[in-house]
Amino acid sequence: MNNNLPQVFWHQPKLTINNRRILNQHKSCVIWLTGLSASGKSTLANELDKYLYNQSIRSYVLDGDNVRHGLNKDLGFSPEDRKENIRRICEVAQLFVDAGLITIAAFISPYLEDRKTVRAMFPLGEFIEVYVKCSVEECERRDPKGLYKMARTNQLKEFTGISAPYEISENPELTIETDKQSVESSILQLAEYLKTHGYLQSI
Amino acid sequence: MNNNLPQVFWHQPKLTINNRRILNQHKSCVIWLTGLSASGKSTLANELDKYLYNQSIRSYVLDGDNVRHGLNKDLGFSPEDRKENIRRICEVAQLFVDAGLITIAAFISPYLEDRKTVRAMFPLGEFIEVYVKCSVEECERRDPKGLYKMARTNQLKEFTGISAPYEISENPELTIETDKQSVESSILQLAEYLKTHGYLQSI
Repeated sequence: MNNNLPQVFWHQPKLTINNRRILNQHKSCVIWLTGLSASGKSTLANELDKYLYNQSIRSYVLDGDNVRHGLNKDLGFSPEDRKENIRRICEVAQLFVDAGLITIAAFISPYLEDRKTVRAMFPLGEFIEVYVKCSVEECERRDPKGLYKMARTNQLKEFTGISAPYEISENPELTIETDKQSVESSILQLAEYLKTHGYLQSI
Repeated sequence: MNNNLPQVFWHQPKLTINNRRILNQHKSCVIWLTGLSASGKSTLANELDKYLYNQSIRSYVLDGDNVRHGLNKDLGFSPEDRKENIRRICEVAQLFVDAGLITIAAFISPYLEDRKTVRAMFPLGEFIEVYVKCSVEECERRDPKGLYKMARTNQLKEFTGISAPYEISENPELTIETDKQSVESSILQLAEYLKTHGYLQSI
C-alpha cells in the first residue's frame, strides 16, 4: 500500500473541537477569574478543578504559577509586558479550549479593556468572566505573599488596589464574594452556573 | 460555615499530573515530530491524533498552524526568534502534558541543540523524539506550499534542507521514513511504540 501521493498526504481532515467535546462528554470553555491579589482566585481555580475532576470532567488551571514562571517568565510589569502577558495567556487558553478542556484562568487582569479583548477572542458562550470580589481591606488582611505590605511601603509600585486601579466589569457572568462566602459555597455557585448553562453535558 | 481563614484558604493541595493520568487511563507525554518542511510531520501528527481519539485517548496537536499564527505570531525567523519560538512551544507542551494529554508537536526544529534543550525540560520518558525522515528530493517534489520553489529562487533565505542545515539526531526514539512508508504504516509504528512502552495505560 502506498498512499503517499500529495493529494492524499496533505488533505486529511483534522479533529475538531466538537469531536473532543463528544469524547469528553462535556463542553469546553474558559472560566476567567479576575480580582485583586489575595481575593481567592487561585484557591477557587484549584478547588473548582478538583470538583470537576471528581465528576470526570477534564479541566486545567492556568495561573501565575505556571505562566509567569514558565511561558511568560521573560515578561515584566510594564504596560507592554502586561498586554503581552494577557495576549499569550489568551492564546494558550484558546488551545486548551480547542483541546476540549474546561480551562480555568486565574489572573488579576485589572483592566476592563484587556478583559474585553480576551472575551472577544472566544466564540459567544465560551468565555465566562467571574469577578472574584473581595474588599481591599480583607485582601490586605490576608496578604499571604506579603505583597500588600510591600505596596504600602513603596517596595512595589503600581500595585492593583493600592496604587493602581482595578476596573470592575458591569456584566461579569458571575460574581463571587470571597469575603462573604465560604470556598465551598463559591464552588457550588460556579458548578451550578456551569450545570444550568449546559457546559457539563456534551454537545 | 466559614473556612475563609488564610491558612485554610491558601494551602489546598492541587491536582497532580498523576491524578489526570488516572482519570484519562493513559500516560501523558510529548511526541516531538521533527524533520524537513513537507516531510509529513503535520500529516502524521493529525493522523496520530485521530488514531488515539478513536481509542478514547486524550491528545492534542501543537504545530505551526496553531502556534506560529497564534501564540508566536510576533516572532520571525531570526536566531533569537527561532529560539524563543521553541521555548514557548516547549512551555506550552509542558502545560499540556501536565494536563494529562498526549501532546503531539510538529515542528521542523532543525537544530540538535534546540531539541536537546526541549528534551531536557521533560522528565525521562516524557519526551519522545520522532525523526520524520524524507529525502530533500522527495520533499521538494511534494512542495505543497511552494516553499522549496521559493527557496531555490532565493525568495526564501535560510531554508532548512536547501540553504540551512537540518541536523539529524543520533538517537531519536523513532525514525519514520515517509518516502518509503505509507501514512498507515507510520501511524501503526507510532502506536506500537506508545503501546509497548506503556504510554497507553494508566500509571
